[in-house]
Amino acid sequence: MAEPIEFYFDFSSPYGYLASCQIDDLAARHGRTVRWRPFLLGVAFKETGQKPLVEQPLRGPYHLHDFARSARRLGLPFRLPTPFPFAAIAASRAFYWLEARDAALANRFAKRIYQRIFGEGQVPADAAALAELAAPMGIDGAALAAGINDPAIKDRLRQATDEAIKRGVFGSPFIYIDGEPFWGHDRLGQVEEWLARGGW
Amino acid sequence: MAEPIEFYFDFSSPYGYLASCQIDDLAARHGRTVRWRPFLLGVAFKETGQKPLVEQPLRGPYHLHDFARSARRLGLPFRLPTPFPFAAIAASRAFYWLEARDAALANRFAKRIYQRIFGEGQVPADAAALAELAAPMGIDGAALAAGINDPAIKDRLRQATDEAIKRGVFGSPFIYIDGEPFWGHDRLGQVEEWLARGGW
Repeated sequence: MAEPIEFYFDFSSPYGYLASCQIDDLAARHGRTVRWRPFLLGVAFKETGQKPLVEQPLRGPYHLHDFARSARRLGLPFRLPTPFPFAAIAASRAFYWLEARDAALANRFAKRIYQRIFGEGQVPADAAALAELAAPMGIDGAALAAGINDPAIKDRLRQATDEAIKRGVFGSPFIYIDGEPFWGHDRLGQVEEWLARGGW
Repeated sequence: MAEPIEFYFDFSSPYGYLASCQIDDLAARHGRTVRWRPFLLGVAFKETGQKPLVEQPLRGPYHLHDFARSARRLGLPFRLPTPFPFAAIAASRAFYWLEARDAALANRFAKRIYQRIFGEGQVPADAAALAELAAPMGIDGAALAAGINDPAIKDRLRQATDEAIKRGVFGSPFIYIDGEPFWGHDRLGQVEEWLARGGW
């Protein structure tokens, strides 16, 4: 079995959302699974000196236009939540708490979180909102809430973020195939090509 | 006849070079011509707060890798000149000097300049180097050298740069189709799709 594709993303990233709707199917077409890796993009921005896209002159208006246009092209629902940008710390911690128990379920939960944020325009910013999303998936909301506040889980997210940055991740989505890095949802075509051809 | 596609680029941009090798053929497949528009990306960076890619932590190493990988994928020669980045002022002025005389020839000259820079790894940084490139194309080197130093041509480049930024251009390449903006050489697939479908 080939190694999983590694899919780094921040839950506050619209382009990460667009990739989240495609990455599992894309990988499956080439006999791969996906290791989902939420991290805190703001920490990476401190390294690179970047600011959130929508706060940048010229770039902000372009990307606001492009978020919606890119979603429309893919036939995906898109609503930018208010406020935007936001810090997706609780959701990221919830992911790592769940991943330690059931990685496949954690991946599905990540997709559900992204749908809520950018498909429905609502940010599950705290344990209650996350538990509400989790319940229909058979995830114990009280345990999830406790998990989010567990110092070990907080450390886990910090560690995942540090590892991502150390490796070279600076944006969302950011994908590795057998160590080969691809930044941006508009590189998914190349990600698929790389998988099909085994590189170039 | 449909309006030309507008192709904004900085001669010091590797991704602009990759686009320059494809844009005319791409447009022609959809009955369009291309209006080439060199501008000074550094001036746009002052607006957006960006720095050259290769000077940014994490982003620099990724893009150095990606420049070469992207060229390899397209089967295009690629050599990063030294020093890099550099300011492509003389080449940009030469373009606007020539464009006022023969726009089609100016476009071909722009392609030749890009080939010299990123295909052969040499920057034609002054009038003599540009004249050497221009001679085989039947362009008068002495007139070109005088044009580069003409205050009206210097103004023309400033004006072109200001117009680009006012319009929303912040990167290279940057393409407009009937007012619709696309940033980045990795959006050429979408540019082609937009032309074929008339939007989405």
